[in-house]
Amino acid sequence: MKSRQLLLKERPNGLPDEQTFEIREEEVKSPEKGEVLLKTLYVSVDPYMRGRMSDQKSYVEPFQVGEPLEGGIVAQVIKSNADYPQKGDIVRGNLPFQEYNTAKADSVSKVNTHELNPSAALSVLGMPGLTAYFGMMHIGEPKEGETVVVSAAAGAVGQIAGQLAKQAGARVVGIVGSEEKAIYITERLGFDATVEYKKENLKVQLQDACPDGIDVYYENVGGEIGDAIWPLLNTFSRVPVCGAISSYNLKKGEADIGPRVQQFLIKSRVKMQGFLVGDFAKHYKEAYKVLAEGVSEGNLVYEETVHKGFDAIPKAFNGLFTGDNIGKQLVKVAAPE
Amino acid sequence: MKSRQLLLKERPNGLPDEQTFEIREEEVKSPEKGEVLLKTLYVSVDPYMRGRMSDQKSYVEPFQVGEPLEGGIVAQVIKSNADYPQKGDIVRGNLPFQEYNTAKADSVSKVNTHELNPSAALSVLGMPGLTAYFGMMHIGEPKEGETVVVSAAAGAVGQIAGQLAKQAGARVVGIVGSEEKAIYITERLGFDATVEYKKENLKVQLQDACPDGIDVYYENVGGEIGDAIWPLLNTFSRVPVCGAISSYNLKKGEADIGPRVQQFLIKSRVKMQGFLVGDFAKHYKEAYKVLAEGVSEGNLVYEETVHKGFDAIPKAFNGLFTGDNIGKQLVKVAAPE
Repeated sequence: MKSRQLLLKERPNGLPDEQTFEIREEEVKSPEKGEVLLKTLYVSVDPYMRGRMSDQKSYVEPFQVGEPLEGGIVAQVIKSNADYPQKGDIVRGNLPFQEYNTAKADSVSKVNTHELNPSAALSVLGMPGLTAYFGMMHIGEPKEGETVVVSAAAGAVGQIAGQLAKQAGARVVGIVGSEEKAIYITERLGFDATVEYKKENLKVQLQDACPDGIDVYYENVGGEIGDAIWPLLNTFSRVPVCGAISSYNLKKGEADIGPRVQQFLIKSRVKMQGFLVGDFAKHYKEAYKVLAEGVSEGNLVYEETVHKGFDAIPKAFNGLFTGDNIGKQLVKVAAPE
Repeated sequence: MKSRQLLLKERPNGLPDEQTFEIREEEVKSPEKGEVLLKTLYVSVDPYMRGRMSDQKSYVEPFQVGEPLEGGIVAQVIKSNADYPQKGDIVRGNLPFQEYNTAKADSVSKVNTHELNPSAALSVLGMPGLTAYFGMMHIGEPKEGETVVVSAAAGAVGQIAGQLAKQAGARVVGIVGSEEKAIYITERLGFDATVEYKKENLKVQLQDACPDGIDVYYENVGGEIGDAIWPLLNTFSRVPVCGAISSYNLKKGEADIGPRVQQFLIKSRVKMQGFLVGDFAKHYKEAYKVLAEGVSEGNLVYEETVHKGFDAIPKAFNGLFTGDNIGKQLVKVAAPE
């Protein structure tokens, strides 16, 4: 059986381009005992993957040149040589970006998205939802009446993080890159105010949106936005640092424009903490329950931007950095059987 | 009765100079009921005071132009119109920089420095000692076998912070500005290794001194040193941010060269937290006990650099920024009676 796979052809310098990726067809081996054959339904593209395209050591190994990318995938079992999962089951796993994968049965798990589309296992009920939950609730810890600012607020993580802060009784301000996104987060998600960072006077917009200062800043972007945020942080404020998307596509030699935070850290006694979703593995159940209940009770709204076809993965990935997506950026590769 | 006082004559732009301060003689009023007349013995000069010389709002009010500076003082009661303290008592307080002060009796407290010189109430058993304790033990939380780096390691705070980390079982590396200080912290204080930031190859020196990376970085200085530290931070490392002395004397328009920390925060899931000693007021007793026992049992060594005479305060203050002092920088104004 043949499958297309998406390879890293060349490490990008800056934003990935047509030299970065290559699609190749490869033989997929039959599943042996304890293995399953999987048909990819959805592929998740996520900003952190950009880091793996470089050769710098980080918390995950770099992708290898000439080897397929890998990431979050929802797939259907089309052949099983194991007790679990069974043929027909919809599963989630961290898998090579291929249309078909042979994988160890215990490397995937059945998705439990209730009445939701199984893609939710890659968005609100998956890594982005959990990331939003832990960063906001375990590090940000918003309290009734506090002001919470979320950057990349209409993104996969931001959309959930902001709603969780709302539910905790905070006043929530979202930073977004377009009017469409501003409308989405206020009208659909219930954010209290928005700041459009591509418009003029970011600092003034932010001051106007945060008359009582900022108690929690959920950081997804870094760069100039951070510089506008820091002077407004209140005493004992918290900054969960989830991402720094503004710096992920720096070219060799380009300086990181992350904020110079030192003086504000002391003045306002800020706690700034980087985290990964995996750091909170022992709390997954707690988070999953909150997220699943929120969605099923209609208190947690989420959006997905779904590109179509295996070929669309590079475009969908780059779209993360150009503000293409509202909510979780996904690629639908096939329909379940 | 007349007393000299040290005024802020003009807000400094950069390092204070001869335009910044002025000494004037003023009448000191007699103590009324509930007041005491105090003779200043020791004046504490501390880097944070530089912030109060600017007109920017911060966690303490700016000094007023034409008014005396104020800060930590150890004084002797020479007249008391209160039950406590009594004439002859040695007290500590936050007081105007004058040779004599009339103050409310309840604004000062008797110092308890056991067999130590009363100046210890401004160093190891005062604000710097407490600051070292809380930053290291409540935020840094060094563990057996971890690597701890302390910047400004021979300073008032650094000398204590490093020894506390040693006592917790950590390997302790101190960053200092001279060979004399390097010898002091290794031979007298028992630090395991030193890095001299004024020598070449700070990054290489630091890598050599920290072969297993860094688990706690006690930050006193900021600037280029921070940039060398951040790539070496281990997963789940902690950075208590006590000071950023490299940026305190920036001139108007000069850019803060604090470290660009964002990418490292996420990669290594660092917790970076600014703090002030006052944030831990409810733990003062605990800290004081540890520090006092450490000193009396000979496990906590400390040094003071003592300038002589009221006139010496400006010079002593500026010396904080030019690496003048080993241990706590103080000015001895008078001997007790």
